[in-house]
Formats: sequence, structure tokens, C-alpha cells
Amino acid sequence: MRTMTQQIVDFKKRPGVIRIVGHRGARGVFPENTMLGFEYTLASGVPLVEFDVVLTADDVPVITHNPTLHKPTFQDQAGQFISNELPIRSLSFAELGRYEVGKIDGTTSYGAAFPDQAQVAGLRVPALAELCALVKQPRHQAARLLLELKSDPSLTNMRSNFVAQVLRVIRDHGVAGQTVLHSFDWEILADCQAQAPDIPTSFLSIASNSEFDLPDDIPAHVKAAGGALWCPHFQDITAKDVADAQRMGLGVVVWTVNAISDIDQMIDFGVDAICSDYPERVQRRLSDRGLRWE
Amino acid sequence: MRTMTQQIVDFKKRPGVIRIVGHRGARGVFPENTMLGFEYTLASGVPLVEFDVVLTADDVPVITHNPTLHKPTFQDQAGQFISNELPIRSLSFAELGRYEVGKIDGTTSYGAAFPDQAQVAGLRVPALAELCALVKQPRHQAARLLLELKSDPSLTNMRSNFVAQVLRVIRDHGVAGQTVLHSFDWEILADCQAQAPDIPTSFLSIASNSEFDLPDDIPAHVKAAGGALWCPHFQDITAKDVADAQRMGLGVVVWTVNAISDIDQMIDFGVDAICSDYPERVQRRLSDRGLRWE
Repeated sequence: MRTMTQQIVDFKKRPGVIRIVGHRGARGVFPENTMLGFEYTLASGVPLVEFDVVLTADDVPVITHNPTLHKPTFQDQAGQFISNELPIRSLSFAELGRYEVGKIDGTTSYGAAFPDQAQVAGLRVPALAELCALVKQPRHQAARLLLELKSDPSLTNMRSNFVAQVLRVIRDHGVAGQTVLHSFDWEILADCQAQAPDIPTSFLSIASNSEFDLPDDIPAHVKAAGGALWCPHFQDITAKDVADAQRMGLGVVVWTVNAISDIDQMIDFGVDAICSDYPERVQRRLSDRGLRWE
Repeated sequence: MRTMTQQIVDFKKRPGVIRIVGHRGARGVFPENTMLGFEYTLASGVPLVEFDVVLTADDVPVITHNPTLHKPTFQDQAGQFISNELPIRSLSFAELGRYEVGKIDGTTSYGAAFPDQAQVAGLRVPALAELCALVKQPRHQAARLLLELKSDPSLTNMRSNFVAQVLRVIRDHGVAGQTVLHSFDWEILADCQAQAPDIPTSFLSIASNSEFDLPDDIPAHVKAAGGALWCPHFQDITAKDVADAQRMGLGVVVWTVNAISDIDQMIDFGVDAICSDYPERVQRRLSDRGLRWE
């Protein structure tokens, strides 16, 4: 049985404390998965940051959500939102750096969902190494990375290299003790455990996801698979599910909880941590209810 | 007649450009009038920041809105929101530093108005000197300060010293060229013009304000008084008022515009700049309408 590492303790509730995880930094307020967003999430006193990692053609782990360029958030060198969603895996890191990702196309439904997001010139897709270097700074020693590996289940033979490349960056920066490896693809998490037994794993689930089959008793399955955290979609769970998982020793981190009424329900359900595009809103709500997050 | 200084050009619209001013930094998202809020606002690509200045007992210009401590936002050394609103003028800068100002009391109507504001430990009332030092950094050369002098009209004999202390800090840091002096108290603005003829002045007005009498034709009065900007409350004006003031050469900066429908109306009215607690929301709205802010 694994011992509970410090980074898992930091995702678990304590009396009077429920944790807050900044989703893609703080997508409601800053461009998602950008260094600006991560810097200000940490500066706001939210040390737990969630983000997504994909590999470039030259095997550089980069922080972006989709396996392809994303039309509503990628601008070309002419400042236009892109029309062609090329695979990230087809571009070198240098080629990826030609796109800006600090704005959102408000004519899309995706853009309309984030009416308060800052629109900032000059932001690029960061390398994972940039974020690791940031959280390695002594002032960010409390920072914890919930690093989602965005694996493409059709490319199972690439899992091992993907994990190896991510771990190389983490080891190079000495941030293994600040990292939790997180995925919907539970097979890649087995690969993570094999390659990095010292880094805890976090199992994502969503009932409506057709890409990955889910077992009937998810917490038991996560526990048996050696997971430390279970991260269900917040609409999939009951208070009993939360309690059952916690009784097995799992931390329960729900996502992506943005409405105040939903934040309240998750607090009432007793979750360990709330992952939100508006981590400041969760801070306010916890404060109002006499709770803390660290 | 005054020549138009660069800092006034930066508050005026151009074809395709309407300016955004961050109100007290970005009060909707970060604790108001804090260095964290100012840093975030500037980092988000909003170079124009509004804030409020008051003098301590030892004549240190500090950045805080009220002439007294403010119950909903000041916490004592025990972490409790204060019960006694002492005058800032009765406290030394060192004494003022014993209070934290990074959280908001959600049980008050003031707190309830800002449900998305980050709650951050360790923030103090900044000295004006700290903000001047920040915007003097080369990376912030585009930053402009809309510095509101919060004068107490019952203490008219203190105006001259207040202006002198503020100007000393501005001159010491070499940021006169980045500053506009701003007040509801138009008499203190006359003092500003006398003591600093090189720094433009900005005349605040609100129809419902009983502290300061307003003339019938406000723009003409502001113009005659040597003002560069007129800053009316956004609910007090019509498109004709805006056009009239601009015809006289005044820049029109409206405050505090937070709702998207109001932001849209102000764009339609043709104002020069929109001062908002949610400057990112104004960025999003301008972007969606094909406009820029710099």
C-alpha cells in the first residue's frame, strides 16, 4: 500500500478546510492554460493548479487542452482565430509558438461561456517546463500540480513515451514532490505508476464519457488500481459516493464547479477539493461559510 | 491653453479604440486598492488604473478608498473584520500596516456585491510610493495612474498639504508623466493645477452627490476650470453630453460600469474610456465588437 505523500494531503480536506483547485489556471478570469493564468492563480492564494499536457512533434510536453489546435482560442500570426485545427503532435514546439492563445472568440459558444476572461496579447502555449520552473521557486513551494495527461486512446502505443517525456521534465525540475498525475485514461495512469512509483495518481471520470469505459463501482476500482484521488464530474455524484470513496482512503476532487449553488452543494457533500474556473469565487464562498482552503 | 499631454491621449478614444480603466485595480476579481490587484490589472493588458489616495497621520499618501478604515474589508491582527472605523488620518503608516485588506466580509451588502473577488492573506494598504515604483519599471511604461485624491471637504485647510505630499511621491518616483490627478473635490484640483501645472486634472461628478455642488453645464465648467478629463457617473449622461464634452476637447471617462448591457450602452454613447471593476469583461466585450483598447 502506498504511503500518503504530502501532495495528496494537500488535496484532502481537514476540519474547517476544503481545497480549491484552479481549473486550467483560472479559466473564468485569465486565458486558460497560460503562464499568466498560473501566476495569478498562485498569487491569489490558490496553490493547487490543474492543467492539460500534450506532446509536440518534437516530444516537448506543452500545456494545452486539446490534442489539436483549438479554434476559439488560437490566433494565427495575422491575429485571426484559426480555421484549421491541426494536431499538436504534427507541430514542433517552435511552430506551436507562432500562435497566440491569450484571447477567445466571443462569436463561438465556447467564447460566450467566459464573458469575464481577460484578453491578453502575446501569450503562447507554455512548455510544461515553464510551469515546473515557476513552482520550483521558493515562494511557490506550497504549489501543487494536478497534471492531466491528455492521451489519445487511439494511440495506445504512444502512452509509454508520453509518460516518459512528462516525467523527464518533472524530474529535471525537481518537482515530483509537488505533482499528481491525472487522466481520464486509466491505462496511462498504470504506465505512470510503473515509471514513477513515487508520484501519486488521480483518476478522472465522467459518466457521459464514451471514450473510456467505466466500471460500476468506480471508487473501489480506483482504489484497487492504486489511485490516490478520484476526480468525478460534480454532476455524477451523491454525498454517499463521496463518503464511500473517502472511507477507502481516496481524496475526492470534483470538477468543474462554477455556479455558487453547485459550489454550495459540493461543500455540503463533503468533497475534499473543488476544481473551478473561478477559484476566487470558491474562496469567497468558503470564506462566507467560515471555511478555509489552506 | 494647456497642450494635451501623452497621458491624456492615452485616456482618449481613437478610431477602433475605446480605453479601459481598472477601478481600484480590478475590484471584481482582486481585493481593491492592493498591489496584487494593480499588478494583475497591468499584467492583463489594462494599462490604465484608477485608485484612491488618503494621508496617514504621518503624512504618508496611502491607497485606500475611505477616509476611515472600512469595516467590510479591513481585518485586525486577530483576523476579524473590524468594528471601529478609525480615521486613516489618526493612524501612522506603521499602525495602518497592522490591518489586512485582502478579504471581504460576505455578510455585508458590500461584500455580497463582489462574489468573485479573490480572498488573499497578507495584503496591506499600499503606500502610493509602492504603486509609483511599480509603474516606473520599464515593462510598465505604458501604465497610467488615475489618482483620486479623497479629500474631506470639511478639512479644506488640509488640501494644500495633501496635494504637496502626493506630488512629492510622484516627483520622487519620476512618474508625473504617467499620472492624472482626479477628484470629486474640484477645489483640490485647482490646488493640483497650481502646484503641478504639468500634470493634467480629471473632474469627477455624480448627480446624486450631496457633498459637492455641481454646476448646470458640467463640461463647460470643467473646461473653464482647466480640466482635461470629465468623469461622470455612467447613469448621469446621454450620448449628447458625451459629444458636447468631446467637442470642447475633454475626454469622457465613465464609471463604474460593470454590467454588459451598460458597457454596451457606453460604447454606443461614444465615451473615451470605461472604468470598471471588471476590466477583463470590458476587454471581452470590446473584442466581441471588433474594438480594441490600446
